[in-house]
Amino acid sequence: MRLARLGELSLIEWVRGRVSYKDKKNLIAGIGDDAAAFRPPRGKIILLTADTMAEGVHFSLDWTAPYQLGWKLVSINVSDIYAMGGGPLWAAFELTAPKDTEEKFIKRLFEGILDALRLYGASLVGGNVSDTKGGLVLSMSVVGQVMGRKGRPVMRKGAKTGEGVYVTGPLGDSACGLKLLKMINRPVEIEKNKKINRPLEWEIMRPLLQRHLMPVLKRPPRNAGASISAMIDISDGLFLDLTRLCKESGVGVKIYEYKIPISREMKKAAEDLGLDPLALAGGGGEDYELLYTAPKATAPRGGILIGEVIKKGRYLAGKNGKTREMRPTGYTHFGSEGKT
Amino acid sequence: MRLARLGELSLIEWVRGRVSYKDKKNLIAGIGDDAAAFRPPRGKIILLTADTMAEGVHFSLDWTAPYQLGWKLVSINVSDIYAMGGGPLWAAFELTAPKDTEEKFIKRLFEGILDALRLYGASLVGGNVSDTKGGLVLSMSVVGQVMGRKGRPVMRKGAKTGEGVYVTGPLGDSACGLKLLKMINRPVEIEKNKKINRPLEWEIMRPLLQRHLMPVLKRPPRNAGASISAMIDISDGLFLDLTRLCKESGVGVKIYEYKIPISREMKKAAEDLGLDPLALAGGGGEDYELLYTAPKATAPRGGILIGEVIKKGRYLAGKNGKTREMRPTGYTHFGSEGKT
Repeated sequence: MRLARLGELSLIEWVRGRVSYKDKKNLIAGIGDDAAAFRPPRGKIILLTADTMAEGVHFSLDWTAPYQLGWKLVSINVSDIYAMGGGPLWAAFELTAPKDTEEKFIKRLFEGILDALRLYGASLVGGNVSDTKGGLVLSMSVVGQVMGRKGRPVMRKGAKTGEGVYVTGPLGDSACGLKLLKMINRPVEIEKNKKINRPLEWEIMRPLLQRHLMPVLKRPPRNAGASISAMIDISDGLFLDLTRLCKESGVGVKIYEYKIPISREMKKAAEDLGLDPLALAGGGGEDYELLYTAPKATAPRGGILIGEVIKKGRYLAGKNGKTREMRPTGYTHFGSEGKT
Repeated sequence: MRLARLGELSLIEWVRGRVSYKDKKNLIAGIGDDAAAFRPPRGKIILLTADTMAEGVHFSLDWTAPYQLGWKLVSINVSDIYAMGGGPLWAAFELTAPKDTEEKFIKRLFEGILDALRLYGASLVGGNVSDTKGGLVLSMSVVGQVMGRKGRPVMRKGAKTGEGVYVTGPLGDSACGLKLLKMINRPVEIEKNKKINRPLEWEIMRPLLQRHLMPVLKRPPRNAGASISAMIDISDGLFLDLTRLCKESGVGVKIYEYKIPISREMKKAAEDLGLDPLALAGGGGEDYELLYTAPKATAPRGGILIGEVIKKGRYLAGKNGKTREMRPTGYTHFGSEGKT
C-alpha cells in the first residue's frame, strides 16, 4: 500500500501503538496531541538539537534501506547531544515524503527510529508527517539533559593551550564504507546480517558499512563537564570539525598524523581500493566520534590522544618531525568547501 | 549571491549576529554549538512541538514572499504550544534549500522567523542548514512551557458532556485569503503594506491575505489548565480538528452553524467570489485559532460559544432547528480525506 492510501492519520495511529516510553512517569502528553508535554529533569540543564537528512544530498536510496535511514537519523541527532556531554530524552520526527512512498518503506523507517531511540534511552513523543513533491526529507529534533549532578554542558569553546586533543575511536571508516556502498550500488541489509563478499570480503566490509549506514555511538566520558574543556562531534570530518572547535575556543592545534586512529579494516580496504587512509580519516566525515580537549594529567580514560592545543595555527606533524598546515577539507553545505 | 557561493558557515554566522535572545540569563549555549543548552523554567512542565512546510504542498513561491514563509513557520509552531496552554521559549530551525536559492531570499526568510519569534517572546537557539535537490522544506521545533504557577497542559482529551465549545476568533479568513492569492498569483508584500485593489478592494483583502500569509496568534486564555477541559488549534479545518478533539475525549458535539464566527471581510469576499462562507469556515483550514471546551459557567472570557459537548455523534444544527451530521472535510496529508 502507498502512503496516499494509508493516510496520515492511520500512520500516526500505527506509530503511536508501537512507541515505548522510556521515562513514562515524567511524560504527560506524547504522540497525538498538539505538542508533547513532559516534566523537566530536576535541576539539570536542558539540551535541544535538530538535524536533517535529505535524499540525494545526505543519502541515496540506491544503497540505503529505510530501517538504516531511521537509525542514522536518530544517531546523528543523539551525537549532537553527546557532544554537549549530555544524554537524550525526547525526540520529535518530521517526515516529508512523496505521496507514492510505499507503506512498508515508511514503517521500516519508523522501526529504525524506534529501535535506535530505545538503544540510546530516548522516546519518540511527537512530530509531523507531510507530503512533498520533491524527495524524502527527514528531520528530527531531540531534547536531552546534561549528565551528572551539577553537570555543565561541554561547548566548542573552552580549549586551552597545552591541553591534549582526543578522539573516541577510529576515523574514516564511514567514508570508506560510503565508497564501498557506491560500488555495491544496492542496499545491504546489515541489520539482518545479510552478507555479501564483493568488492571485498564481508569481514572487512561489515564494520565499514555499519559505520556509514547505522552508526552506534559511544557515550561521552562520565562527568564530561568536569574533565573536558571543549568538545564537538565529528560529522563533517576531523580537520573541519577541529577547525570549528579551534575557532570557537580561540586556539590553535598540532595533530600528529600518525596518531590518528585508523581501523585494521579501513586500512585494508583503502589499500585494496587504492585510497589514502589519512585523507579518509581527516576529511571523510560522518564519523560520529567525539573530539575533545582536556588537560593531559586529568583527561578521561579511553580517549585516544592525537595532538595538543597550541596558541595559534593548525598543523599536522609527521613521524619525521616535519610539520605542515592542516587544511580543513570536510563537508559543508552549499559548497563553501572548508570555509569556517 | 546564491547560497552556493555564500556558504553554510557564513549564513550561520550572519544569523548568529542577528539573533536577540529573550531570556539570556537562562541560555547557556545558543546558535553555533552542537546543541543549544538552557536552564529549564523551575517547576514548570516543558512542551515540545515540530512542524514542517514543504514547497508545493504547504506553500507556493508564486504568491508567497520569503519573509511571510518565515513568519508563518513560527506561527504554526507556536500555535501548537498555545494549544497546550503554554508559551514558547526556544526554537530550532531546519532549512533545506536548493543550492541556487538567492541569498537575499534566505535572509528575508530568517528575518520573518526572527521577527515572529520576537513577537511571541521566543528565541532562535539552533538548527541546521542543508541543501536539497528537491524544493524548499522548512522545519521548526519549538520548546515551550506551560503557563501559570501550577499549570497543567491542556490536551485534546478532557472534554465532558454538557460543556460549551468555543473558538477564539472568526474562521475561514485564511482559506478565503488563499483563494484570493491564487487569483492574484504573485507575492503581495503585506508586511510592507503594499496595496493592490484586484480582484477585490484592499480593505477587504488585506485581513484575509494577512490571515493566510502571516497569521498573528492570540494567546490562550490565562490559566487555561484550570478553566479549559480540552483544546486544539484549528490547522486543518474546524470540523476535522473538532473531530480529533472529540475522538481523543470520547465525546460527541453539536455545533450551531449560525454561531460559527465569520468576519465581515470574509463574508463580503465570499459573496463576490461566489464561495460558501460556511464551507470555508468549517473546512478551509489554517485558521490558527484555538478551539476548546469548558464548563459554560466558568468558561474564560473572550471565547465565542459555537456549540456544546454531547455524549456521542457529531452534528450541525441550523437556525430552523434541523440537525445534520457533521462531515470532517479538512486537510490531511497523503490524501486520506477526513479520515480520523
